[in-house]
Amino acid sequence: MITVQSIRDAAARIGPHRIRTPLVFSPTFSEMTGARVYLKLETLQKAGSFKIRGATNRILCNLDIAKAHGVVAASAGNHAQGVAVAAHRAGVAATIVMPVWASGAKQAATKGYGAQIVLAGQTLEESVDHARALAREGMLFIHPYDDEEVIAGQGTIGLEILEDLPDVDRIIVPVGGGGLIAGIAIAVRGQRPSCRVTGVQAAACPSVYEALRTGTALCTLAQPTLADGIRVTQAGSLTIPIIRDHVDPVILVEEDEIADAMLALIERKKVIAEGAGAAPLAALLSGRIPVEPGSGVVLVISGGNIDSPLLERVIRRALVLRGRILACSVLLEDRPGALAGLLSLIAQEQGNILDIHHEPAAPGIPIGYVRIRLEIETRGKDHVAAILSSLKKAGYATEPS
Amino acid sequence: MITVQSIRDAAARIGPHRIRTPLVFSPTFSEMTGARVYLKLETLQKAGSFKIRGATNRILCNLDIAKAHGVVAASAGNHAQGVAVAAHRAGVAATIVMPVWASGAKQAATKGYGAQIVLAGQTLEESVDHARALAREGMLFIHPYDDEEVIAGQGTIGLEILEDLPDVDRIIVPVGGGGLIAGIAIAVRGQRPSCRVTGVQAAACPSVYEALRTGTALCTLAQPTLADGIRVTQAGSLTIPIIRDHVDPVILVEEDEIADAMLALIERKKVIAEGAGAAPLAALLSGRIPVEPGSGVVLVISGGNIDSPLLERVIRRALVLRGRILACSVLLEDRPGALAGLLSLIAQEQGNILDIHHEPAAPGIPIGYVRIRLEIETRGKDHVAAILSSLKKAGYATEPS
Repeated sequence: MITVQSIRDAAARIGPHRIRTPLVFSPTFSEMTGARVYLKLETLQKAGSFKIRGATNRILCNLDIAKAHGVVAASAGNHAQGVAVAAHRAGVAATIVMPVWASGAKQAATKGYGAQIVLAGQTLEESVDHARALAREGMLFIHPYDDEEVIAGQGTIGLEILEDLPDVDRIIVPVGGGGLIAGIAIAVRGQRPSCRVTGVQAAACPSVYEALRTGTALCTLAQPTLADGIRVTQAGSLTIPIIRDHVDPVILVEEDEIADAMLALIERKKVIAEGAGAAPLAALLSGRIPVEPGSGVVLVISGGNIDSPLLERVIRRALVLRGRILACSVLLEDRPGALAGLLSLIAQEQGNILDIHHEPAAPGIPIGYVRIRLEIETRGKDHVAAILSSLKKAGYATEPS
Repeated sequence: MITVQSIRDAAARIGPHRIRTPLVFSPTFSEMTGARVYLKLETLQKAGSFKIRGATNRILCNLDIAKAHGVVAASAGNHAQGVAVAAHRAGVAATIVMPVWASGAKQAATKGYGAQIVLAGQTLEESVDHARALAREGMLFIHPYDDEEVIAGQGTIGLEILEDLPDVDRIIVPVGGGGLIAGIAIAVRGQRPSCRVTGVQAAACPSVYEALRTGTALCTLAQPTLADGIRVTQAGSLTIPIIRDHVDPVILVEEDEIADAMLALIERKKVIAEGAGAAPLAALLSGRIPVEPGSGVVLVISGGNIDSPLLERVIRRALVLRGRILACSVLLEDRPGALAGLLSLIAQEQGNILDIHHEPAAPGIPIGYVRIRLEIETRGKDHVAAILSSLKKAGYATEPS
């Protein structure tokens, strides 16, 4: 049974093992929603996500076993790095079981924190089975969410939010297996019952949402999602009852909303969040959560571990979505000066060419014409409309590409 | 004369007009340098940089004039947005003079904060002249750095650093006109004389560095730089004597070091810094600043205002620099299956194709061959070496592109 007191004990236990992350006001998101919006930046946490809190509490609660036999966990993501760093800091050996398809970057990052990597299992569930087998030989098993000591550790975030913003009215939290939100909900609701706790899942993997709706804890639907940190197909047996009692509601967000929230955090607050970490902002900006004017709303930005090449792609995709990049193709007569004329017109409209392809003989192009594919940097949707309208007036046929 | 007391007064005055930004520990940069490294995250400040502090202090010190006539400033960057937000919050009108070439994005951002934009001047100096002319008609002029009230406002950062880390040994600060570092140096050195304050400029625009070296305050050399926030060609007449007395030393960093520091902040701390904001990390990681093992080092990450398309390009450039993207071209026989064979080999080595161009008839290519230009995502330099060595073994001729 997890209580406010067990979370307070966890906070005292993990002390300086974790960074006490800041709660930072956002003028922009406040203005956009009418609430007072704050971000709890677990992106600044050691190893880039909240996971170190629960892992450290679990290790320190069982330090003798951990010292004697080491700890073991299964994960291809944040939990792997969180356990590795927690173990390193506590001076115990860590073994991380990863599915065979785990990316080289994640393996390298986890190894970099001093853990031993074992590649075993075609799925994460098989990796978990392998880790449990190692635990039966003595190692301390650290489950990513379905464990009271882990949940109590994550709950320390709730205590910190209450310390920094005692009059908080709503906390919005990403939900994978449910350990993070369960801990926060107990910490906060036990002290301030009027504060509502809202969960957010990716529509691509609505495991807890469906478990609450149907009463069964198995998710069959799991599409790829930007929010891979909360792509957990099996809701926790410990976490679901806590969520049922304390969380209201759990809502779903779409991929484009997540990408857009990631870019909003970058552009408006200079914060890099992974998809899961941006999900609370996606939920808030979607308008699906009612917020009272002037009320205190906290978004738990749970982590920032996103590979740079993926980050680059997300920025580009969101720029296209919000009209900061115009991708289109234009059919041109194949004669000297035609391309120069087109580009001069775009330059006049202050569009900045990012990329250009010249396709003289692609299928569907009439003889005597070429297709020019363009990527143009713009100031936004109005600018896109102005450029397209100028092109049309000058007689160019454009189409999206 | 600016004193610790005038900075304390400024702090009391600007109070909740500014966000009291967090000082956050960085385990990674600490491990890399042997020091205890903390980041003062002015990227989380209102309007994305420290500028609002000085602007607010200046306005509140002269509130009657500001209310009666409004305020005016000249800037194409952070100072424009800082003044706009400070004025808005204080309930006074703001006019920002921008050079005619100011980007649409910067104009829009500044307008978005409620300021009126006047485009005047081919250079920033001409915009300043125009702003001063408006000030002579009654408006309160807010200089970006050469003003005691502005310097005292920026100095509040120094007070906050001392509150959060009383045993700080060194603070590393980006230097443009010198207002930020002058304020911080007075605040810190007046209370803790043993703390050293180090300034960083871009080698592309070493105005203060040269002013200290030569005794004259004019910079003739100013190349384009990623750190446009500290691309100030004229050091301040108020700031230089303060820097001479309190700062030790001012050092220069190169463009690649700045880009690399920006990516390190993104990858290791999930923080977006503009070039100027990343300059202190670039300086620290360059090894050019001696740091004692275990000493407390604070990097002032002064701002995060970077346009998303530029951010995308910086990420890409830094990825290429550190071998996370391999750009090369390969000469292939022009026969069916040749390209498939090449791509299979790269797939075997787990390289991920980001971009590919097929050039059948470029100059210098023998008849019967095509050149394939590739961009491949890799895990780093070792992975690049492995891919290139596999290609060589299989008989492919590669060259960098």
